[in-house]
Amino acid sequence: MNTYLDCIPCFLKQALNAARAATDDEVQMKLVLDTLARLIPDIPLNQPPPETARLIYRTVREVTGVSDPFKAYKDESIKNALLLYEGLKSTVNSSEDPLHMAVKVAITGNVIDLGANPDYDLEKEMKSVLNGSLAVDHFQSFRQSLEKAETVLFLGDNAGETVFDRILIETMGKETLYTVRETPIINDATVEEAQKSGIGEVARIISSGCDTPGTLLKRCSQEFLDIFSSAQLIISKGQGNFESLSDEKAPIFFLFKVKCPVVSRHVGADEGEMILKNSIIPS
Amino acid sequence: MNTYLDCIPCFLKQALNAARAATDDEVQMKLVLDTLARLIPDIPLNQPPPETARLIYRTVREVTGVSDPFKAYKDESIKNALLLYEGLKSTVNSSEDPLHMAVKVAITGNVIDLGANPDYDLEKEMKSVLNGSLAVDHFQSFRQSLEKAETVLFLGDNAGETVFDRILIETMGKETLYTVRETPIINDATVEEAQKSGIGEVARIISSGCDTPGTLLKRCSQEFLDIFSSAQLIISKGQGNFESLSDEKAPIFFLFKVKCPVVSRHVGADEGEMILKNSIIPS
Repeated sequence: MNTYLDCIPCFLKQALNAARAATDDEVQMKLVLDTLARLIPDIPLNQPPPETARLIYRTVREVTGVSDPFKAYKDESIKNALLLYEGLKSTVNSSEDPLHMAVKVAITGNVIDLGANPDYDLEKEMKSVLNGSLAVDHFQSFRQSLEKAETVLFLGDNAGETVFDRILIETMGKETLYTVRETPIINDATVEEAQKSGIGEVARIISSGCDTPGTLLKRCSQEFLDIFSSAQLIISKGQGNFESLSDEKAPIFFLFKVKCPVVSRHVGADEGEMILKNSIIPS
Repeated sequence: MNTYLDCIPCFLKQALNAARAATDDEVQMKLVLDTLARLIPDIPLNQPPPETARLIYRTVREVTGVSDPFKAYKDESIKNALLLYEGLKSTVNSSEDPLHMAVKVAITGNVIDLGANPDYDLEKEMKSVLNGSLAVDHFQSFRQSLEKAETVLFLGDNAGETVFDRILIETMGKETLYTVRETPIINDATVEEAQKSGIGEVARIISSGCDTPGTLLKRCSQEFLDIFSSAQLIISKGQGNFESLSDEKAPIFFLFKVKCPVVSRHVGADEGEMILKNSIIPS
């Protein structure tokens, strides 16, 4: 997916959010905005938005000296998600179609702003989401692809969401490679957060080699590219991975919540809606 | 009110909206964003946001060659508002406290995005808003000030909202000077839109001399400044006028809807809430 003009103001908003997470110093925050503003004329519109997000977080790192501004947020998200783990496992195991429910659990992990809500709100929202339906729902195609696949390549997204992904991995029962970012970027999971979420107990954790908040192939390691190109089934979590991979010819199922008006128009679903989309079926 | 860091991404968003209203050419839109982005490091945070809005709309004019991108929108807003005029007059005249209701009608004019909704939605929303209460409500102080004042200086805001203002002017029954912007800026009323709204029948229309979407005194004409400094009672409509005048020592009542998170924090009311605020009473 290319970058839209609407992404440009949003880049500055994201930069401000990240700068605020890194520092209390308003002068540094303004410097982050000014530095990024000067780069705006060079933003390539023919690249996916995560390519520019990389620039944003590099600017925040360079200006504030903080390499992982969302570290505490990520840890809190994982802690909160782990509190829900047993309850969600029961929900999945006792449902009529555990695989379908596990898919919804995994997408729900992308829905909820784990760090911002206390547990009881989380549980309430989880229930409401799990009872709802998906705006794009290629589940039958997903089930068939999964039956045929011997291994699954799973592209992770946010820390905390990782715990929900673990439930889907356990329910699928396939040998799984779980991919995370090489370095901290926003609240995306790195190897450290995937380990803390217990992913290491159910899958092999690998880095994509990329430092963008989305799996941009041109930024990935050769090791990852070899795995990607031979994958039988790829589960791609989150909007950033969708933005990065939506034009790739690969057996991908995108699981995410629509989080902005640009992606909303791109996939033809409302903001807040949940998507399970096969890369080769038009929505 | 000073400019907050959160205003900076919003400036780019406003620039894109205005560029879209002026042209269909994405290259020109991008050029507007790039030009403005280069100016961001020079944005003065110790000035109210309308000072920068002036820069935004000048950029849009210079890049696109369109001096009044919202002209059709303004005309449509006035047309829709005029359709509601008789009904709102009846609502005010038949209410227990016509002045209080007329104040709510005038604030409601600032609430509704007139151009975007067909009439029946408007009427429905009007009813719901008119039955609601204000988040900040200095009405008793307003009534007392109005009783003592012989003349009222009324600072207008958007085209369309002007029609609702007319109802308040008629209900107050005081000699009124109605102030509009000198030149087109966003969808703010100029003399032309005030005339089309029928304001000329109930008040004398004057220009503030300023070309910002808010009455920034340093940008106003000397003629207006003389009127402002001797005014007995000033009614200031809209968030832009509030941002521009919130720190002035003058007998101002601000009537507006809270339209962004920055002003929400500044006045301590939620977005979407309605405000009737005396400049000298802390909220």
